Parts: sequence; C-alpha cells; structure tokens
Amino acid sequence: MIIVGERINGTRTRVRDAVVARDADVIAEEAMRQAEAGADYIDLNAGTDPQREPEDLVWLVRTVQEVVDRPLCIDSPNVDALRAGIEACRSKPLVNSASAESGRIEAVLGLVARHGARVVGLTLDDTGLPDTAEQRVSIAKTLTKRAEELGIAREDIFIDPLARAVAVENEQGAAFLDAVAGIKEALPGIHAICGLSNISYQMPSRRLLNRTFVGMAMARGLDAAIVDPLDGGLMAAICAANVVLGQDEMCVGYIQAHRAGRLAEWS
Amino acid sequence: MIIVGERINGTRTRVRDAVVARDADVIAEEAMRQAEAGADYIDLNAGTDPQREPEDLVWLVRTVQEVVDRPLCIDSPNVDALRAGIEACRSKPLVNSASAESGRIEAVLGLVARHGARVVGLTLDDTGLPDTAEQRVSIAKTLTKRAEELGIAREDIFIDPLARAVAVENEQGAAFLDAVAGIKEALPGIHAICGLSNISYQMPSRRLLNRTFVGMAMARGLDAAIVDPLDGGLMAAICAANVVLGQDEMCVGYIQAHRAGRLAEWS
Repeated sequence: MIIVGERINGTRTRVRDAVVARDADVIAEEAMRQAEAGADYIDLNAGTDPQREPEDLVWLVRTVQEVVDRPLCIDSPNVDALRAGIEACRSKPLVNSASAESGRIEAVLGLVARHGARVVGLTLDDTGLPDTAEQRVSIAKTLTKRAEELGIAREDIFIDPLARAVAVENEQGAAFLDAVAGIKEALPGIHAICGLSNISYQMPSRRLLNRTFVGMAMARGLDAAIVDPLDGGLMAAICAANVVLGQDEMCVGYIQAHRAGRLAEWS
Repeated sequence: MIIVGERINGTRTRVRDAVVARDADVIAEEAMRQAEAGADYIDLNAGTDPQREPEDLVWLVRTVQEVVDRPLCIDSPNVDALRAGIEACRSKPLVNSASAESGRIEAVLGLVARHGARVVGLTLDDTGLPDTAEQRVSIAKTLTKRAEELGIAREDIFIDPLARAVAVENEQGAAFLDAVAGIKEALPGIHAICGLSNISYQMPSRRLLNRTFVGMAMARGLDAAIVDPLDGGLMAAICAANVVLGQDEMCVGYIQAHRAGRLAEWS
C-alpha cells in the first residue's frame, strides 16, 4: 500500500499561513512527522492564488526536500504551478492530478510525460462526475490510453475513481468499490488511489467510516491512498489490511507496529 | 448483514458450567445481551460429551426461547445433538454445520431438509481443508448441488469458506476473500458466512485484525458472520461497512448507533 501524506495542504490554515510567511519550520515538521508515520509520498498543495502559487509550490518543494528523502506529490489545479513544482523536484514526483476533461488531459499528461513523472488521473470528463462504476472504468481507459500514447508507463498511472459522500447518495460507496475492482481488472498493472474524506462527508463518526472504507477498498484492489498518516486508527487499519491481503510478508510490518505501540489503542 | 451471536458456546467455561449446572440465568443473560446488541441468530453450542449433548442442547434451546424471540443457530459436530436441538426449536433454525465430508453431508443435509431448516456448509471434504479459493468454490458447488437436490432453497444455504490463520500461512487471507467472491458469483443468491477468530490466531492486536477483516470480507460479498456481538469495535465496523455498501438505507442504522453512543469510542 502506497501512502500519500496529505497534511501539507493550503486548505489547512496552519499550512497556508506558513506558506505565506515562508515559515520553513512548520512545513519541515509536517513533512518529517508524516515520513516518520509511514508516508511514501509527501503531498504538497500550496492552495494560494494562481498568480503566486507556482512560486509558493517551488518553495514548498525545496523546503521539504531539505528534510526528508521521500518523493513528492505535486498537487494543484493549476498547470503552471504543477510545472514549476515538478521542475524543482530532485526525484520522480507523482503529479496530482490529470483528468479526462478536455482542458486538462493534454496539458497535464504532456507535462507528466516530458518530465518522466507519475500521475494521478481522476475519473472525470467533460460530462462531469460519473455516477456508475462502468462510467468510471470507461474514463480510466480513456486516460490510460492517452497517457500510454504519450509514453507514460502503466505502472506510473494512478487512477482515482473519486469517492463520493454516502450520506448524500447511499449507492456511491458500492459504485466506488466496483469501480476500483473494474479498473484493476480492465487495466492490469495500473494503480488505484483515492482520498478518504469525501466518503464520510456529513456523517457522524467519520474516522470510523474512513477506516472501514479503506480496508474494504483495499480488498477490491486499492493500492494507494491520500491520507493523514498521523491518524493512528487509519494507519492501524491499513497495516491490518496489508496482513489480510498477504502483502506484509511474515507479518513483519504488523508485528513491528505492534511492538512500537502503534496498534494497541485500536485493538 | 446477518449476525450470529457466538457467546453461548461450551468452550467458554462460564457457559459450560452453566449448562452442566442447569443455571438458566447465566444463559438467559447471554442470550438477551446478544439480542440487544444486534444478534439476528443466537448460536447454541453445548460443548459437552456426546452422550449428554442432545439433552444439554435441548435445555439450551428451551432456556433461550423463553427470553428472546431471535431464531437459533444449532451448533454441534454431533448429528444426534443437532436433531434433538432442531426438534426443540419453535422457529426455523440455522444448522451449524454440514460439510462435504462423506460421513457428514448426507446426514446433516437430510436433517436440514426434513425440518425445513437453514444450514451452514463448511468448505471441507474428505481431502481435508482446502488451500485455494478454487477448491473452496468447488466444494461449495458440491454442497449446494446436494442441498438443492434434497429440496433446500438456495437462500437457506450459508457457505463458510473457512478462514485460516494468516500468521501461519500469509496467503490464506487473500484465498478466503477470493473464495467469498467466487462463491457469491458461482452460486447467485447463496449466503457467505464465516467465523472471525481463526484469521488472527497467534497474532497480536487480534481485535484490530478481526475488525478490519470483516469489512474486507463484506466488500467481497460476505453477508453473515458468527461473532461476539458484545465486541463494540467489531459491531461498529460492521455498521460502517453496511453504510459503505449501501445496505443501510438513508444511513438510519448508523445514525441510530451513533446516537446510542455505540460508535464514538471507535471513531
């Protein structure tokens, strides 16, 4: 399971203030804590105005690269910011995100291909958010076809089938799970990724829902997630799910987490 | 999700002592607490010597029927005890268990068919415990074919693909999950059931593993489980998984559990 640590995001006031004030200590601490907690990638989202965002993202990349050796996930809706961020990376980044929208697919996939990066592709096209698993699989095929035409390797493509709030649309959890399984079956070797917060929107006990959901999605083929690695219950669930799937050889990761005291509270 | 409450089992000293002493209060309390916590069936396993077990099981059936209206799961390796227990039931019981072993398949399925009961069929035959998902699906087909020949309806058949300890055999979690999905696909309308305790045998933080596992199995089609309904974390996970699968209309069950304070500790 590939963990993308989501905490350095300008939608958090603490992060946004640190970006604007160029407070490297706050950002460095967020990066180190996530790496320590098991993040494989550190997501960087400046969340500032488009005019200043490229410069802010470059500052984030440089600040984080000084303190951790994890690869970075360069996260922005703004293609100029993505380009600036990618160019500042020392190691192969994950670009978050492309979609099949006509204004975005060529620009982002072209950028990813030119820089030999990896990419998150959202199952979103000009018709809007897909409702069904089948629609998501179809958009995933479109994205993957174009990415491969541009020379991006299958193993560098992460499809996000876009989890939606089950409180609003009860059937969207099952549609998401079926989409993960359908995408993994239709496109062997591809990664399936998602963020967790949408699924539990407007529900009580959100962390219980998120934690249960991630294990269920892993059982259908999810192999990457954009999460808060400091959420101990969530990371314990992912650790347990890795064991169930036989992806933790000799259960070494689980037993180490247990010995480090990271599981007891959740058992 | 169908919950079979497993607490009235003679392998627990408290239950065994109560059975031998005919202490109805202990048994009644165990039955009522499980029903209150959401058990759909109350499992009864006397766990006593074969000579006295039929009489003990009849006493358990009568004792529990006096205090709860839930149907019962009549649980014994002993066909004579199963017969006595079934005959004492007021409502349609679940019989636990048949298997495809030559000494067991005809005797148990015949009993189930004659009494119009439901049955748990273990994926076990004369060659022993199956290793792979494919072997489990094959045995499930054998069991279902014979059950249906005897007049047992598909919806009254619960297949248990037998979870095994991941600590001992790392690949057995994935084999189990694939078996659940394979059985549900090959035999539409069938139920898939399992006990949870084996999966986490010899592992630390067992309840974390069990709770993660049940959600993962539900994501592959498990629709019944033999569990301790007083395990609040496990029941919270099942409640959350029902929401994710769209099986809790308008999330009413989840919100009620939240309001009753049954989720907060696990969020």
